[in-house]
Amino acid sequence: MSAKLIAVLPGDGIGPEIMAEAVKVLQALDLDLQLETAPVGGAAYEASGHPLPDTTLNLAKKADAVLFGAVGDWKYDKLERALRPEQAILGLRKHLGLFANFRPALCYEQLTHASSLKPELVAGLDILILRELTGDIYFGTPRGRRTAVDGHFPGAEEAFDTMRYSRPEIERIAHLAFQAARKRRGKVTSVDKANVLETSQLWKDVVTEVHQQYADVQLDHMYVDNAAMQLVKAPKAFDVIVTGNLFGDILSDEAAMLTGSIGMLPSASLDKNGKGLYEPSHGSAPDIAGKGVANPLATILSAAMMLRYTLNQPAQADRIEAAVQAVLAQGLRTGDIWSEGTTKVGTREMGDAVVGMI
Amino acid sequence: MSAKLIAVLPGDGIGPEIMAEAVKVLQALDLDLQLETAPVGGAAYEASGHPLPDTTLNLAKKADAVLFGAVGDWKYDKLERALRPEQAILGLRKHLGLFANFRPALCYEQLTHASSLKPELVAGLDILILRELTGDIYFGTPRGRRTAVDGHFPGAEEAFDTMRYSRPEIERIAHLAFQAARKRRGKVTSVDKANVLETSQLWKDVVTEVHQQYADVQLDHMYVDNAAMQLVKAPKAFDVIVTGNLFGDILSDEAAMLTGSIGMLPSASLDKNGKGLYEPSHGSAPDIAGKGVANPLATILSAAMMLRYTLNQPAQADRIEAAVQAVLAQGLRTGDIWSEGTTKVGTREMGDAVVGMI
Ligand SMILES: CC(C)[C@H](C(=O)O)[C@@H](O)C(=O)O
Ligand SMILES: CC(C)[C@H](C(=O)O)[C@@H](O)C(=O)O
Repeated sequence: MSAKLIAVLPGDGIGPEIMAEAVKVLQALDLDLQLETAPVGGAAYEASGHPLPDTTLNLAKKADAVLFGAVGDWKYDKLERALRPEQAILGLRKHLGLFANFRPALCYEQLTHASSLKPELVAGLDILILRELTGDIYFGTPRGRRTAVDGHFPGAEEAFDTMRYSRPEIERIAHLAFQAARKRRGKVTSVDKANVLETSQLWKDVVTEVHQQYADVQLDHMYVDNAAMQLVKAPKAFDVIVTGNLFGDILSDEAAMLTGSIGMLPSASLDKNGKGLYEPSHGSAPDIAGKGVANPLATILSAAMMLRYTLNQPAQADRIEAAVQAVLAQGLRTGDIWSEGTTKVGTREMGDAVVGMI
Repeated sequence: MSAKLIAVLPGDGIGPEIMAEAVKVLQALDLDLQLETAPVGGAAYEASGHPLPDTTLNLAKKADAVLFGAVGDWKYDKLERALRPEQAILGLRKHLGLFANFRPALCYEQLTHASSLKPELVAGLDILILRELTGDIYFGTPRGRRTAVDGHFPGAEEAFDTMRYSRPEIERIAHLAFQAARKRRGKVTSVDKANVLETSQLWKDVVTEVHQQYADVQLDHMYVDNAAMQLVKAPKAFDVIVTGNLFGDILSDEAAMLTGSIGMLPSASLDKNGKGLYEPSHGSAPDIAGKGVANPLATILSAAMMLRYTLNQPAQADRIEAAVQAVLAQGLRTGDIWSEGTTKVGTREMGDAVVGMI
């Protein structure tokens, strides 16, 4: 088997620091990987005037998998939207066809107390949020500014966007949700706003149809406002949540924060062949960038997800995950998950500790 | 002063029970009110084939204020959307021009423990969510189903909706947010998704412009996914949150649930003249309807909000709110907020207790 090519895109803020640790961990495994690094986000904009340069996009296309750090910084807020760091991640999703975003919200036993929620509500929490990632109002056209011809203020300036989903887009993500649930606790909650939106009504109809092929899986439908509430009230009642791009953006972040340790949560964004982009669920945290205090574990666990989902190396993924468990058991903590009685370590020490356990 | 006309719309599920208690409380005050009841939601559909019959809409239009219970029941799920109970509330908002939805998320001292969150995170919580209520993707046209001509699956069936906001729609809600903040802790957080949506970018631009007239108020902008997280992480960092219809739907419910006592939270939806519709933040709870166990306090407090915002009777509003505080202090609790050591009471007993305190 020839070497697998991994596109390594560290990005902005804490991206380079946390990526360095994930790379170290990958290199500690005996795998035939070829890691190639390229700039993305603000870093790429600084270097070449675009957040997703062609060379970076081409590397990502050519690669077997993409390992992504984080992008964004307040200092790019004034740029026109097309040049802002976030466009890189939207562009990668679109051009690589990464329609299925898997975001586990997992509460580690040792970190239960870090949650805002009472321990009994989150102990053992294990939700999988499956977010559609290449459709919805994120990419729908037409969109822009114009003069309103109707509505409350005809003649006024207005801005607009288009939410849309087609039947096959919903079908393919629904299949993945039911398949994922089969390997878990057998329950899917499909989240929509079908009491208001046409797009949601089609979503609900199609998910219900696809469900007929998965009679062994339980399907519930929930409105997005209610889902935002139930996540706070009784998060452990969920198993797999499947939803559109916009609702998934909101709910996956809410669910991640419920665990209290978003610095621990990896994510995978897959195309129809299982090729994927792997990234931590947290952002670029420009406020702590360069200080060596960021938590690299979400990125390290993203590398593990990459081994499992795209590179078909489950045993190696297990090794990384077991090593992370072991350093937690040892009491090592970066600042974001530190608590009385545990040992505070920096980004590099944490990465070294994981390597040491492998 | 002639009698003020109040349209009383009990609706479905627990609506009639909780409304009966609010009416009792209003009648216990020496106010010149004329209360006129009309069916709405599923109840109206059963009676006359439409969730918002003309007679009900006309009463609401004619009235000085509307007191609304709750609508909805699973049994109407199969009806076409235009006939479902929720259409009544959307229709009232639209036809009465109720663009400003005030939803306080307040944590009562005695109920702090009822929250999913650790007590120290919610003790004293007092957020005001100001949600725009007559625009956005809720009412935007065009919307419907069609054959996709582009996107991922040209030729496939697709559904679509239009998100839109015009400059004056954003201006008027922004003014209300800054004015509300002035009477509170002087801070507004405007929530959008300007890194992705054109509509959000206009929202952000206009809120920033309006802010120039309120230099004494602090303005922050936050992306909706981050807001969903920060509400869980540190809800007390917020004062006033202002946002669009869709994001407001999600975040106001999340915030309400954070308090642990959504059965206590009233809401007001105002038009440009201060006329309003007042309703509890919770839903129709068909599962406990007719059992006499629902919490009437959110509806009673909605009546207090009505006295304060629309009927200009702040002293009478104070009386109701003080009476509610007093029954809580007495230890009376409906099932939803009951805990060890307090006295469980039913809907009617709770209403009677509030009346007794007045
Ligand atoms: C940066 C932004 C465009 C992105 C999104 O909204 O999808 C982010 O919030 C995410 O969830 O990955
Ligand atoms: C019933 C539904 C249409 C409504 C909404 O989405 O606005 C409700 O959720 C609310 O928040 O009042």
